Amino acid sequence: MTPKRRARLAVSIVCEPGDPRLPALLAAHGPMGLIDAIRADRQLEGRPWPSAWIHRVQSLDQRLARAERLAEVAGLRWVVQGDRGWPTGLDDLDHVEPLHGATGAPVGLWVRGTGHLADLCATSVAVVGARDCTPYGAEAASEIAADAAAADVTVVSGAAFGIDASAHRGALAMGRPTVAVLACDAATDYPRAHAALLSRIAESGLVVSEQPPGHVPTKPRFLSRNRLIAGLAGGTVVVEARRRSGSLNTLHWADRLGRPTMAVPGPVTSQQSGGTHQAVRDGKAVLVTGGSDVLAELAGLGAPEPESITSTATEFDQLPAPAQRALDALSWRGARSARDVAAAANLGPHNVAKALELLARRGLAERAGDGWLLVRRADLA
Amino acid sequence: MTPKRRARLAVSIVCEPGDPRLPALLAAHGPMGLIDAIRADRQLEGRPWPSAWIHRVQSLDQRLARAERLAEVAGLRWVVQGDRGWPTGLDDLDHVEPLHGATGAPVGLWVRGTGHLADLCATSVAVVGARDCTPYGAEAASEIAADAAAADVTVVSGAAFGIDASAHRGALAMGRPTVAVLACDAATDYPRAHAALLSRIAESGLVVSEQPPGHVPTKPRFLSRNRLIAGLAGGTVVVEARRRSGSLNTLHWADRLGRPTMAVPGPVTSQQSGGTHQAVRDGKAVLVTGGSDVLAELAGLGAPEPESITSTATEFDQLPAPAQRALDALSWRGARSARDVAAAANLGPHNVAKALELLARRGLAERAGDGWLLVRRADLA
Repeated sequence: MTPKRRARLAVSIVCEPGDPRLPALLAAHGPMGLIDAIRADRQLEGRPWPSAWIHRVQSLDQRLARAERLAEVAGLRWVVQGDRGWPTGLDDLDHVEPLHGATGAPVGLWVRGTGHLADLCATSVAVVGARDCTPYGAEAASEIAADAAAADVTVVSGAAFGIDASAHRGALAMGRPTVAVLACDAATDYPRAHAALLSRIAESGLVVSEQPPGHVPTKPRFLSRNRLIAGLAGGTVVVEARRRSGSLNTLHWADRLGRPTMAVPGPVTSQQSGGTHQAVRDGKAVLVTGGSDVLAELAGLGAPEPESITSTATEFDQLPAPAQRALDALSWRGARSARDVAAAANLGPHNVAKALELLARRGLAERAGDGWLLVRRADLA
Repeated sequence: MTPKRRARLAVSIVCEPGDPRLPALLAAHGPMGLIDAIRADRQLEGRPWPSAWIHRVQSLDQRLARAERLAEVAGLRWVVQGDRGWPTGLDDLDHVEPLHGATGAPVGLWVRGTGHLADLCATSVAVVGARDCTPYGAEAASEIAADAAAADVTVVSGAAFGIDASAHRGALAMGRPTVAVLACDAATDYPRAHAALLSRIAESGLVVSEQPPGHVPTKPRFLSRNRLIAGLAGGTVVVEARRRSGSLNTLHWADRLGRPTMAVPGPVTSQQSGGTHQAVRDGKAVLVTGGSDVLAELAGLGAPEPESITSTATEFDQLPAPAQRALDALSWRGARSARDVAAAANLGPHNVAKALELLARRGLAERAGDGWLLVRRADLA
């Protein structure tokens, strides 16, 4: 590992990944300058270093050696800014305000697996949601992921129980690679029950983390991990989330990044859809009902023209006036003779026959014995 | 009946209620002037009368006598503009463009029942939707209607099978009056299977129609009836509707009237929610998940502040820095001693104890044997 790459690793060990102070410090002093200054306890910009950084830098060499040893055993690769494999979309995070005490592009990413991170993320969507999801939510997540995968859109998620796992599996079932972003290091199978799933993901896609090998998942790391899911993906879909759920946090990051934010509705009686409904109500996410809606949002196409919801409007309006009057004279409660229709619609025998034939062709009327009936249609309330 | 009131009835008999030409003709010539001109086949504004109007005016006296006889038998009242019982909100319809060949305030309304129409509609909401609804939709409609009724908001609907009937029943079950607007005349129990429901509605509320007694429901009358539902109510909720369903037509009228338009989401796998999802996606309706959302929209309060969806943000950010560092040092995979937490968080023994106690009080950490565990919470993904 080159000194500069190792310096980035050192930063991720000494300073908690996602620390909001890092983007400015790295931009001003570079990773080597930053580590040297902390090690020498030499203040930059007149501010003392956080005591935790001073504490960790004192045992940096052992920590670095341990991380590199663990990475080697697990076959992890260290991808940093400037590498061809670096997804440049992550750099947008440097301009987003902190949330839960984290922000900024990661100092680097550890990846496990055969995929090429930048290529995989070039066209991608995050599909995330509740761990305690319903069978409905799991099914919806898998379907959306499968549709995205089939369209060569990489599914990015967090490998958690519930929606995340269903999303990864939906993509894998289509034989397409998927990207899992962990809150612990990339070498650890977390949750442990997903060891086989994570191995499967690494076969064609990638397991990704900004945490140095050896770091365990903590609450803040779950929350700062979410910014990477949003930052790696071209847009974010939340499938199920309770109100105030952490899954909505990923939506927040996508929103701040100016990328499409989407939410799947569900039964209003389901608490697991409470957060997605709230996000739509608050204008924080667009409602999507499936893969085609998601692909349209990612393509910036959005919803179809509003006119389409009242397209039955034109069906009546486009009829010639005699046919409108004949239609008006028909009932679905009992057949009326052409003669009665003619009288009610004030039409001659020839015109009423023409009008009724037209209505029959349009599926609006039908013969019933000697008379005519209005066709009963489910699309008319 | 005074000659002027009878002239309005004559207009509703001669000219199909909802004819888009009526608002201007009535404003310019009044009901009596209009009927006189049609009867005399005297052109107004240089245009010949529609042949259907000429046809009907020839037998107007018999038609009037029949309508009045039917109304008397059924105990209908005829409410017209200027009456104390007239809901003035209907007059807004005179300024809405035609849809399906209909628009405008009704010439008058026939009402059956004991309710006071203007009072009932002063605070009201239309709850409408699919006839072929699901049990989920029926339940949602009843719940919303019950919540509205409990808040003294009158439920207006169309007495159709499915969502409409569930909405009426939800209000009646709370012992509150409800208003049913029919596409046939107000004397007819339509659908016939709802005869008992309509009688129940008339006991405390009203069964309403703009159609003269004797008029049967036809396709155009169902569509023009929807404008009255939207025009009588302070806002419209669609609970379930297939894509391109006629139920969305009521939403369209409410939208054109500038009144709150709302739609209830459902499973994306349900065709009966396809139209409501589309309406939300198209920005034609606000997503509502229950009675409280509906009441908020009617009150013009709308959705709560967007910030609330990420309110967990502040939970971590509001902790003092030592508590943040202590939290960071905890794991939910295994307990850590206070001493280990102190080392990792770079805190003294007193400060780490204080920090851990604070985290315990906030429900973020808990004692486990001699050590401390991060509390596993469903709201963190």
